[in-house]
Amino acid sequence: MGSSSRRDVLRAAAVGGVGLGLAALGTSGIAQATTQAATQAGTPSEAQGERPPHEQGGARGPKIGILLYEGFSVLDPTGPAEVLSRLPNATVTMIAERPGLVRSDTGDVALFADRPIAAVRDLDVLLVPGGSEKAVLRVFDNARLMDWIRRTHERTKWTTSVCTGSMILGKAGLLKGLRATTYWAGKEYLESLGATYVKARYVRDGKIITSAGVSAGQDMALYLASQLADDRTAQAIQLGIEYDPHPPFDTGSPDKADPELRALALKLLADSQV
Amino acid sequence: MGSSSRRDVLRAAAVGGVGLGLAALGTSGIAQATTQAATQAGTPSEAQGERPPHEQGGARGPKIGILLYEGFSVLDPTGPAEVLSRLPNATVTMIAERPGLVRSDTGDVALFADRPIAAVRDLDVLLVPGGSEKAVLRVFDNARLMDWIRRTHERTKWTTSVCTGSMILGKAGLLKGLRATTYWAGKEYLESLGATYVKARYVRDGKIITSAGVSAGQDMALYLASQLADDRTAQAIQLGIEYDPHPPFDTGSPDKADPELRALALKLLADSQV
Repeated sequence: MGSSSRRDVLRAAAVGGVGLGLAALGTSGIAQATTQAATQAGTPSEAQGERPPHEQGGARGPKIGILLYEGFSVLDPTGPAEVLSRLPNATVTMIAERPGLVRSDTGDVALFADRPIAAVRDLDVLLVPGGSEKAVLRVFDNARLMDWIRRTHERTKWTTSVCTGSMILGKAGLLKGLRATTYWAGKEYLESLGATYVKARYVRDGKIITSAGVSAGQDMALYLASQLADDRTAQAIQLGIEYDPHPPFDTGSPDKADPELRALALKLLADSQV
Repeated sequence: MGSSSRRDVLRAAAVGGVGLGLAALGTSGIAQATTQAATQAGTPSEAQGERPPHEQGGARGPKIGILLYEGFSVLDPTGPAEVLSRLPNATVTMIAERPGLVRSDTGDVALFADRPIAAVRDLDVLLVPGGSEKAVLRVFDNARLMDWIRRTHERTKWTTSVCTGSMILGKAGLLKGLRATTYWAGKEYLESLGATYVKARYVRDGKIITSAGVSAGQDMALYLASQLADDRTAQAIQLGIEYDPHPPFDTGSPDKADPELRALALKLLADSQV
């Protein structure tokens, strides 16, 4: 069953249930209808084994590919995935050198890469997340990955990065002469790769959009959503994920931190990485 | 090798490389030393097969467990995981009814659950993410999961939720008479479960902390980090993930959206879910 038609079946079964607006959940009929539809479309355990939606065909929206590699930072791919997977008919595909589990920099979280790079040629959007220093260095040394990034970039509508993912784009030679951004501690290294560093949450130059550290991928993804669809759609996605941030502290930028806090931030990152 | 000692080996090998502060990357000796250390500690592909860090022992920090179930929203567990895995000596473990892949509500992303609920008894922190309406309904109907949540909660220091994860805590009977929050569209349903809804990014009542929709888990996790460690540590983590949000729009709260945008937000969520 195509992903669109499968979605239609399940959506129709929800009979007025509006996404996560659970106000109507008291009506047991909705739960019943939903359970039946879920059974028809495959139980949760069966769903684990079937082909992921992006391989089921039928999608007419943007094809977004996120490149995973051992030692990525978990929020770098998942923040943008949360945003971009809400675009109408979009598919977000996790890609790696080989299909299978790919562990994050702390070793705590593993994401599954559904597709190997060898099977992915055309993407509307390529996103390269950041990772630990040694993870990024391993990507630099991986000619297959670096070649794939360069070849894929030639055919994308957008090539994007989060955090130290910008270093990977830069090392691939894609940022020469461009304005770009990256993690706050990586300014000098980014410039050594031929880019002009810009202090911003995200920077667009041509079809390349680079983001600042880790969490900035969410801001970038909302901008990208506005470009792939329109402002109104991006605004609705922002509301859909209730992205009205209000952290308990205001120390998210090096300008807002003393030198000791900056050093502690880098120490905690390094200590947490396996 | 214990996770702490493995971290020490790799960290020592980085010879002055400060986490993601890549300014020193130009020195090829660092790359060399890092590659050698990575080889000694297991190549990336070998690392996929070995036991995850939380099973290697040696941790003295907080034990954080995140419960996955089919149809979770991908940012709900991963935003807090990014924050909490930076706490000194913390372990973040993905848990599900059965170990293995668990797919998100859009079907695009699969996280790996390292531990089955049957093997997890003591946690310092339990986090229950939100998911699609039918995913949450399936959890309601899963007596094993609901019982495990109740039993685990009895022994936690903190029991927390993101988005519609609050409904799961509520259905388990944990929010009766408490102040709590949830996704903006779920206020009425949360109150039907005996909680007093509070409009906030996160709400603490006793040892239970509930969060607003999806992205609010990051704000909650920074608060939780300050409680598990101290303000200074949480502030350094905020800087470490460069969480200085500046989205291109300001429509992340229902108060900032017209009724049509609210309806569109719910439609996009429902349409994106398999």
